[in-house]
Amino acid sequence: MAKYKNVASDIIERIKKHEFKDIGKLPTEDEMIEYYNVSRNTIRSALKTLTSQGVIYSRQGSGFYIRQRSNDNCIPITGTNGLTYDFPHNTFTNVVLSIELLKADEILAKKMFCEVGDSIYFCKRLRILDDKKFALEFSYYNQKIVPYLGKEIAEKSIYNYLQDNLKLKFGFADKHISAIKLNKEQAELLELETGDPGLVIADTVYLDNGMMFNTSQVIYNYKYANFYAMAVR
Amino acid sequence: MAKYKNVASDIIERIKKHEFKDIGKLPTEDEMIEYYNVSRNTIRSALKTLTSQGVIYSRQGSGFYIRQRSNDNCIPITGTNGLTYDFPHNTFTNVVLSIELLKADEILAKKMFCEVGDSIYFCKRLRILDDKKFALEFSYYNQKIVPYLGKEIAEKSIYNYLQDNLKLKFGFADKHISAIKLNKEQAELLELETGDPGLVIADTVYLDNGMMFNTSQVIYNYKYANFYAMAVR
Repeated sequence: MAKYKNVASDIIERIKKHEFKDIGKLPTEDEMIEYYNVSRNTIRSALKTLTSQGVIYSRQGSGFYIRQRSNDNCIPITGTNGLTYDFPHNTFTNVVLSIELLKADEILAKKMFCEVGDSIYFCKRLRILDDKKFALEFSYYNQKIVPYLGKEIAEKSIYNYLQDNLKLKFGFADKHISAIKLNKEQAELLELETGDPGLVIADTVYLDNGMMFNTSQVIYNYKYANFYAMAVR
Repeated sequence: MAKYKNVASDIIERIKKHEFKDIGKLPTEDEMIEYYNVSRNTIRSALKTLTSQGVIYSRQGSGFYIRQRSNDNCIPITGTNGLTYDFPHNTFTNVVLSIELLKADEILAKKMFCEVGDSIYFCKRLRILDDKKFALEFSYYNQKIVPYLGKEIAEKSIYNYLQDNLKLKFGFADKHISAIKLNKEQAELLELETGDPGLVIADTVYLDNGMMFNTSQVIYNYKYANFYAMAVR
């Protein structure tokens, strides 16, 4: 892993442990150069990564501050730290609606960049935030990369399983954002009315070797979901 | 401007002129190092910027490809090149619904990081893509930074005016994405039904000196608007 990514991960761990809680901001660049024993460029790359993930933000001449996440229940759209990180004071429960092993037809093969006939796991989950029906997830995994996916895994965190047990390394994800009208089934699961808005994020996720292994469509409850992004000129 | 930003801007200009149209991809890193007479790091920073803006994407071992934008009418959420860049084959028309100069009350002052009583331009526009009612925009500008804003400007491009005439340099923007149910007025303007979904992007835009000068709320027509983002681990 690149040095700056190690630094970025370590800073996230320290934020999780509330190490900077008193002042709400990170140490200075110089302090971090000494602490991590790396170059200024490495620290700056790490800070840039954390900024684009919505973990920290900079104030002119005053340093890097830790973004309050739980207050506004705001999910960084370019973040890949997972909902449990984005909502540190809440509990997520996953209701697994179904897990099937499908044979890819032409449409699914195109979607998964795989061959017709390949085996693809299809998982439907309802994600509940405390007692709120937060999101409905339709997710596909290529069995060549994810040999097994069971209910006991999907009830916890699929991504933790992929990273910790299968040792997969995520590279990047393409995301498409749109809004839809919920159909009857979607609305009932989210405890909304048919025709209500749904905020849709469709992901295509690649490993760090460039191989695509997962696509998903997540329909978020418009009453609770709020995403954050930063654009830099 | 940092060297890599100049390179990134130049590559965008060359893409606009269809210079790489035949093969649909950029020259190799080595070719660009020679062409621009800059370091490998500078080229890589430029490519990273263009990737995060959704202008190009990389294919493992095969180089950087130019993303087809007009095909899927997809707007990069972290891009700041403007809708006219994102839809090169379409025409945008702006209907200016109102422009007012307001005195900031407490709520607006908080929103604009300004003093109560400061003068703030408020502009309401309907943005039409070809013949489609594409988006409804509610935008606030601090008069200290934008001394004048008239209908003749808002009918064209406010951002071009700020950059080309006022020589303002944009730094970064905070974006919040959510979905709402349209009220009657919003629905009528977008030629939709009351209660239909609206995809909302709320922007807070800063100059490169860190000063905030513009907030806006744009309600996109869910039938046409589709945003793109990339997450990198």
